[in-house]
Amino acid sequence: MTTILAAAEAPRYTADGRMIRPDDYREWVFLSSGLGMTYGPLKAEAGAANPPFDNVFVTRQAYREFMRTGTWPDKTMLMLEVRGSISKGSINQSGHFQGERLGLEVHVKDEGRFPGKWGFFGFRDGENAAKAIPASASCYPCHAEHGAVDTTFVQFYPTLIDVAKSKGTLQAK
Amino acid sequence: MTTILAAAEAPRYTADGRMIRPDDYREWVFLSSGLGMTYGPLKAEAGAANPPFDNVFVTRQAYREFMRTGTWPDKTMLMLEVRGSISKGSINQSGHFQGERLGLEVHVKDEGRFPGKWGFFGFRDGENAAKAIPASASCYPCHAEHGAVDTTFVQFYPTLIDVAKSKGTLQAK
Repeated sequence: MTTILAAAEAPRYTADGRMIRPDDYREWVFLSSGLGMTYGPLKAEAGAANPPFDNVFVTRQAYREFMRTGTWPDKTMLMLEVRGSISKGSINQSGHFQGERLGLEVHVKDEGRFPGKWGFFGFRDGENAAKAIPASASCYPCHAEHGAVDTTFVQFYPTLIDVAKSKGTLQAK
Repeated sequence: MTTILAAAEAPRYTADGRMIRPDDYREWVFLSSGLGMTYGPLKAEAGAANPPFDNVFVTRQAYREFMRTGTWPDKTMLMLEVRGSISKGSINQSGHFQGERLGLEVHVKDEGRFPGKWGFFGFRDGENAAKAIPASASCYPCHAEHGAVDTTFVQFYPTLIDVAKSKGTLQAK
């Protein structure tokens, strides 16, 4: 059975192919948060005192479909929100809490639109729509090669790992 | 106007006053995540290689009410989920991502039940209900003294700070 997602949770585009920023993503389902995660060779900022947090959210209906099937339906959107980290503030003395938003990128499954089924868009503050990140960018092959489920990093989303294992969709990555 | 929250998002208790664990909290609204946050004097574990993550979620209707008013309605539940952190795994080389759940505590506003309006409960794995944490525990005075809005740590929830400021509910803490 193919589940059709409600239009409100599907990606929307401008006539010239830019994706309209979904402004309600903070009400989507949270998947996980990382601090200073670094793939591959260490970058200079890996040892920074205040590395960024990455929060990942997914549309609610896509989340429920994943819990049922272990994979993502067409029109799934995963939002990556990057935030600064702060160590000392209020009564906090050590460790890190989240500060201002530094970046916002979406990974969207739209089988009829993207040759590889999935596309990436990066939203800039003050713009309500974004051009697709070119297919030559490193995010595409990295997700295709290393994403544990359908080009997504389910290996870093702790509540999804066991679901994918039980449904037989988790690849060792 | 007093907003009555739907029963599904209100706390439920056993006949002997234990709170029934809300198992859908991962579908609530995410407020923020911290890594190794430490209040007051530094603890020995503050410099641990893999300190815990703290994720905080709030019931959806309470979140919307906060966005409208800058404070929490009766029956609000905030869930604190503690997870282990992992540095090296899959293609990640540095920084931290989230691992298994280590703890689960709820902070619930129930004006008719708690003398200070709010109560805390800690859920143990394998138990579907929890006794209230005694009012003599340190969480109560710490939240009362240092919480920026109505005994909650809004100063650490980046998307709520500006709302509380604009509604005049944020205390400097």
